[in-house]
Amino acid sequence: MTGSELRFDTISFLSDYGRSDEFVGVVHSVIRTIAPAVRVIDITHDVPPHDVRAGGLALARSAQYMAPGVALAVVDPGVGTGRKSVVIEVADGAAFLVGPDNGLLAPAVAMVGGATGAVILDNADYQLPAMGRTFDGRDVFAPVAAHLCLGVPITELGTAVDPIQLLPGLLPVSEVADDGSIKAEILWIDRFGNAQINVEPEFLDDWPDVVSIVGGRVDRNAARVETFADIPPGGFGLLVDSYGLLAIAVDRGSAAAELELVEGDEITLWPSDRAPTTSSPVTLQAKPTVTRPESSADAPESP
Amino acid sequence: MTGSELRFDTISFLSDYGRSDEFVGVVHSVIRTIAPAVRVIDITHDVPPHDVRAGGLALARSAQYMAPGVALAVVDPGVGTGRKSVVIEVADGAAFLVGPDNGLLAPAVAMVGGATGAVILDNADYQLPAMGRTFDGRDVFAPVAAHLCLGVPITELGTAVDPIQLLPGLLPVSEVADDGSIKAEILWIDRFGNAQINVEPEFLDDWPDVVSIVGGRVDRNAARVETFADIPPGGFGLLVDSYGLLAIAVDRGSAAAELELVEGDEITLWPSDRAPTTSSPVTLQAKPTVTRPESSADAPESP
Amino acid sequence: MTGSELRFDTISFLSDYGRSDEFVGVVHSVIRTIAPAVRVIDITHDVPPHDVRAGGLALARSAQYMAPGVALAVVDPGVGTGRKSVVIEVADGAAFLVGPDNGLLAPAVAMVGGATGAVILDNADYQLPAMGRTFDGRDVFAPVAAHLCLGVPITELGTAVDPIQLLPGLLPVSEVADDGSIKAEILWIDRFGNAQINVEPEFLDDWPDVVSIVGGRVDRNAARVETFADIPPGGFGLLVDSYGLLAIAVDRGSAAAELELVEGDEITLWPSDRAPTTSSPVTLQAKPTVTRPESSADAPESP
Repeated sequence: MTGSELRFDTISFLSDYGRSDEFVGVVHSVIRTIAPAVRVIDITHDVPPHDVRAGGLALARSAQYMAPGVALAVVDPGVGTGRKSVVIEVADGAAFLVGPDNGLLAPAVAMVGGATGAVILDNADYQLPAMGRTFDGRDVFAPVAAHLCLGVPITELGTAVDPIQLLPGLLPVSEVADDGSIKAEILWIDRFGNAQINVEPEFLDDWPDVVSIVGGRVDRNAARVETFADIPPGGFGLLVDSYGLLAIAVDRGSAAAELELVEGDEITLWPSDRAPTTSSPVTLQAKPTVTRPESSADAPESP
Repeated sequence: MTGSELRFDTISFLSDYGRSDEFVGVVHSVIRTIAPAVRVIDITHDVPPHDVRAGGLALARSAQYMAPGVALAVVDPGVGTGRKSVVIEVADGAAFLVGPDNGLLAPAVAMVGGATGAVILDNADYQLPAMGRTFDGRDVFAPVAAHLCLGVPITELGTAVDPIQLLPGLLPVSEVADDGSIKAEILWIDRFGNAQINVEPEFLDDWPDVVSIVGGRVDRNAARVETFADIPPGGFGLLVDSYGLLAIAVDRGSAAAELELVEGDEITLWPSDRAPTTSSPVTLQAKPTVTRPESSADAPESP
Repeated sequence: MTGSELRFDTISFLSDYGRSDEFVGVVHSVIRTIAPAVRVIDITHDVPPHDVRAGGLALARSAQYMAPGVALAVVDPGVGTGRKSVVIEVADGAAFLVGPDNGLLAPAVAMVGGATGAVILDNADYQLPAMGRTFDGRDVFAPVAAHLCLGVPITELGTAVDPIQLLPGLLPVSEVADDGSIKAEILWIDRFGNAQINVEPEFLDDWPDVVSIVGGRVDRNAARVETFADIPPGGFGLLVDSYGLLAIAVDRGSAAAELELVEGDEITLWPSDRAPTTSSPVTLQAKPTVTRPESSADAPESP
């Protein structure tokens, strides 16, 4: 069989299965057996176990770059319970997403324009017989993704439902407060320690070159920069990352480690010239626990 | 070349090579160069270094799901010594397994019906010239797997031997004792902390709903459940896992961590109403080190 | 599209992206979208973050085994700065290497015979529009690698430069000192703890069977052996590894852990019968911190 006979020839696969067990390889094997000509692209499988939020954000970041086809996503703490298994159609059938109905797929669906259809996967004819109800990635989602590539209509796979009935994803929204500050959240800390926040650069159009970042363990200034190399040694930078959101960074080091940030942390951004005087937002030291009481915008880490 | 001209178009690859070095990529490269149309599916490469038992079990769990073709498995503490390199034929040539003759392949061979032939890989014509004798995965096993896909008869690859002469795999067998208990072993602890044991659910057909699990560091009751969600908070469950064996689990947590279990641990299962009174098998607490002396089958973790 | 219409059908991909984020998957997706028939082979993505030296060595070790095509390598601490992005042609167009001009590609280029051409990637037509300048693997290098496979001439991709203008790789060279010792460096410590050094076996042709290894934390004898199994229990061996270089090893254990070696450590090799008497190079114990003052060549770890 060649790709030309298929509806889709690519499945993009994300999970929290890790690599230490054979889970990922077995899912690949199931797809290879049902739809041999389909290529499976591993997005990542190191989503923290059961972390639906992190998996949903990674899927959304990847969605716009995926090859046309099926996205197969499994972060599924409720496997084997009454939670529904679904396929979601987007762009009138230009692509499909397959996975549990627990909010995991919702951010990516929103990213690519919203759902145009959805089906609950309750037709066992397109699934593998399962001995135990603990590995739906192998027994339900992978076979369904493969059959979608082969051209099986989604209405064959189960019962159609209004997408509005599916669990929404909970994406934190940043807020501009009356005092001009922005309440934001750490969305993602990448391998290099860059901390992406849910703020688009346009929000800071009229802000000064230095931004104060204040949170539970954080009270620091960051320079608004274009590249990592523009961040002064020992200082922090706020730059537009590769997904178009603002990220807190240091040059050749881990901003998250230095600031002890974790995903989900809430922070507040202030124009440095309007930051509350009690927040001591400036420091000369790289160590985040040491701050100087006198705040000023001409701290060394500003460009 | 297209897949239709090949004997097989899939190699399923498992090893203890890890991902931090280029070993896995180089093996893929060798196969790609010899047999470009073959797809390599990575089962896992994070078998603990030199752990033949863990690799053999992972291969056996995967075997029934692999796409038709060649299984290439390398966990090889004896590389470069006198240990033999082999290809094993199963199902009269429906599939082949390639790797060291150290028991690694045996559980998977047994899983798919036993060997119908075997060859010692002593024909260097189908291997790469090697500078040092430390990377047989690249120099011996990968080229042989690729040539098998191309249709080379196994008798070309070396000297035929009776499969009975190969090293057997050592699979622990559970035993039902005269007192009605079952001596079992922890076969596998997966990424999520579920602890698979070598007991099939049929063994417990006439047992009560609560099972006592007694071992070196363990003395707990577990409820027999169908899904993770049926396990009460703070309690343990015994369910049929996705491979059809019993596994000890907690809901959204790691049973292995809570019980301090490691692979290879021996445990004894008792019907909770017949467990030795000295074993204090019941507890209300989630902390495994705290137990209550009074045993009863109506403990909170029973369904 | 089938492979026969392509200039190349394989991209070999190495990076320091790790697997916990979606970086690797997104690069695969970009290539899949631009050049669907191309196969991407992951060499490794667990190069330590920003470690250009380690990435360059891994690429060089892999180069001779790669399938014909394009090598895509990204270890790029200077992303977004003025450092140049390049494609290097080798063997008059038999293969190409794509990545940052920071010395990463140089060892592999040298390994396969040197550059026959080079281009600075300054034509945005063959790149993706980028929101932020932090992910050139996705926005610059992957699209260029894909277009190279499709047959785009390298002169289309940017401005030709003399390869002599590119940053050289810094490969440590071992030296034979006047006193007959060899000053060497730990090039690589693999997953199994074997420590590869930059010494070819020919250097030791006239040496005795036992070699003294002296360095910051190390003062030990090693037996020259052919395989791991020839290394006596508790002792160290010096063998020719699978890349034709000498490596310090122990049998079924980690030489690097026992000797506390890290990549980049400098060591000196002495013929054991000429080692300085002050170096106490022999020990009977496996623990590296315990040594005996009396040196002799008939120590237990010699064969």
